[in-house]
Amino acid sequence: MNSEFAFINRIRSRAALRSADLVCGIGDDTAIITERAGREMLVTADLLIEDVHFKSDYTPPRHLGHKALAVSLSDIAAMGGEPRHALLTLGIPKNKSRFPNPDPQWEEFFAGYFALADKFGVTLIGGDTCAAPDRLVIDSIVMGNCARGKAVRRSGAQPGDGIYVTGELGASAAGLELLRRGERLSENKDSALQRALRAHLTPQPRVEFGRRIGEAGLTRAMIDVSDGLAQDLGHICEESGVGAIIDYAEVPMAAETRLVSESDESAFTLATSGGEDYELLLTADRRDETVLKEIAQACNLLLTRIGEIVAIDPAVCASPLLLRQAGRIEPLRARGYDHFA
Amino acid sequence: MNSEFAFINRIRSRAALRSADLVCGIGDDTAIITERAGREMLVTADLLIEDVHFKSDYTPPRHLGHKALAVSLSDIAAMGGEPRHALLTLGIPKNKSRFPNPDPQWEEFFAGYFALADKFGVTLIGGDTCAAPDRLVIDSIVMGNCARGKAVRRSGAQPGDGIYVTGELGASAAGLELLRRGERLSENKDSALQRALRAHLTPQPRVEFGRRIGEAGLTRAMIDVSDGLAQDLGHICEESGVGAIIDYAEVPMAAETRLVSESDESAFTLATSGGEDYELLLTADRRDETVLKEIAQACNLLLTRIGEIVAIDPAVCASPLLLRQAGRIEPLRARGYDHFA
Repeated sequence: MNSEFAFINRIRSRAALRSADLVCGIGDDTAIITERAGREMLVTADLLIEDVHFKSDYTPPRHLGHKALAVSLSDIAAMGGEPRHALLTLGIPKNKSRFPNPDPQWEEFFAGYFALADKFGVTLIGGDTCAAPDRLVIDSIVMGNCARGKAVRRSGAQPGDGIYVTGELGASAAGLELLRRGERLSENKDSALQRALRAHLTPQPRVEFGRRIGEAGLTRAMIDVSDGLAQDLGHICEESGVGAIIDYAEVPMAAETRLVSESDESAFTLATSGGEDYELLLTADRRDETVLKEIAQACNLLLTRIGEIVAIDPAVCASPLLLRQAGRIEPLRARGYDHFA
Repeated sequence: MNSEFAFINRIRSRAALRSADLVCGIGDDTAIITERAGREMLVTADLLIEDVHFKSDYTPPRHLGHKALAVSLSDIAAMGGEPRHALLTLGIPKNKSRFPNPDPQWEEFFAGYFALADKFGVTLIGGDTCAAPDRLVIDSIVMGNCARGKAVRRSGAQPGDGIYVTGELGASAAGLELLRRGERLSENKDSALQRALRAHLTPQPRVEFGRRIGEAGLTRAMIDVSDGLAQDLGHICEESGVGAIIDYAEVPMAAETRLVSESDESAFTLATSGGEDYELLLTADRRDETVLKEIAQACNLLLTRIGEIVAIDPAVCASPLLLRQAGRIEPLRARGYDHFA
């Protein structure tokens, strides 16, 4: 790139896809969006820092562009919303060895970013770019909306609700472990190993399913699985003031977990605490299960009931998260990622 | 801090100030805001990275918290908008030596941040926190709004418009130079040197003035002075397809520029290319000048007409920015900061 403004202008020309409620995108002090009566706006931000969230040596730029947007789209999906607009802030290392051949690499990054944005009709409307001392910094901001009162929060789970999860769990964590062991993505190969790497590098946010069940009012509480099933279910329980029992046998463990797990127990830990699956975890009235499964099928998604929400008396049971396995009930341990632990 | 969630919960309890259109703030996958008919939403993001935008050794945490919010409020002000909601993403180095005694330092950071947020009725509604390898990373996102069609863009300047700027220019750049030379902030002292340091460390966004003249439709183009007068005026000229003549003698140079300048010329360069003043630069019909000055006075602000917008034929004059000094007209050189230069 020859200058900051040339770089921004190139992004700006690519971002020119317009949405009906966008008044002004990239190119002014702020972006401008028309507010609409009867709608609610959703906004989320996700920070990705090199060597914390990804490593350049195993992350192709195109996949990084995809993932930067995917993680924020997943938050909008978890509210039952429709993503509309995105902002992107980039801190770019001057040291080119970190990101060799800046121009082609950035073309790749934005190819991945915009392919996903176009898929869901999302317009890039602003952000910021600056130099970074050494490591690439990305903040991905996505705004969406939904009908008033329809946003699905973490706090609506009720005792008796079924607990459901889309897709399978643990492939992303297995992929990360394989990358750490030196395995690398090979686009032309299809194997369990490559599927695990792709699960980690290009997670698919469940935007369509989230939006449809949110609009239809079919879920009482929802979250995306970013920190791991156990930790994210813990957030629902905490915000809803309830407990949960998970059935060990029902958790849809990805076959890819076996690539890095010696035992059933370690595969289960990967599936429930690995994180970065970006599947949707939700609770719903079990009478709606048939409709939920029909919508999942229409979205080409597996949907599995893995347990139920229960009322728990904290005086009696210290853990709100319980695991039912072979007739025994024990605490479900959350080993999700804590950035400051 | 003992964990990521304890840290977030502490911020969450402090952020509990509610605005009428906020449905859900910190604590879910996304924040939720009610959209309103007849309003436009403004959104901006500003990335601040340690050792690029600030250095820990001369930036007290309270001032950093203030500045992180101030730079984004300034963008909303430059649209003539009213700031309402903020998101904050923080990448926090684990290496404590970079930010000694995390807890008191973060209390200070948020004291500075929330003091400014409270002043303008801004509610912190979300963001992200994660670990950073070594340097503190802050992305400051602010959302605001204005009546439909009232947002002031860079593109509305017309030949004949007066060019106006609030306050004085160059004190912030002088302050930065003094900090680099080893000078440090001393809260109890009031001197030109201390005023220069404060201009750099705690810029005051011109929120009230921007909102009032935006609402009243008194300005045709506006931008905040972050990259320096010359560069920011260049943005207005480029987006509006016009040129500008600045009167050398009218530019309100801060007296503090003299602390680091040997000559009139270097003081002028500091005032026009130094940047980070966060004053508002605007164009307006000169018949509105009296009203503009009354509003500025009501906001305790100096407002100076420094030149005029002109039609420029690019075939005749290569530079859209001209400087009129002692009867001569020459190009006004922009030496604003380019992150990738």
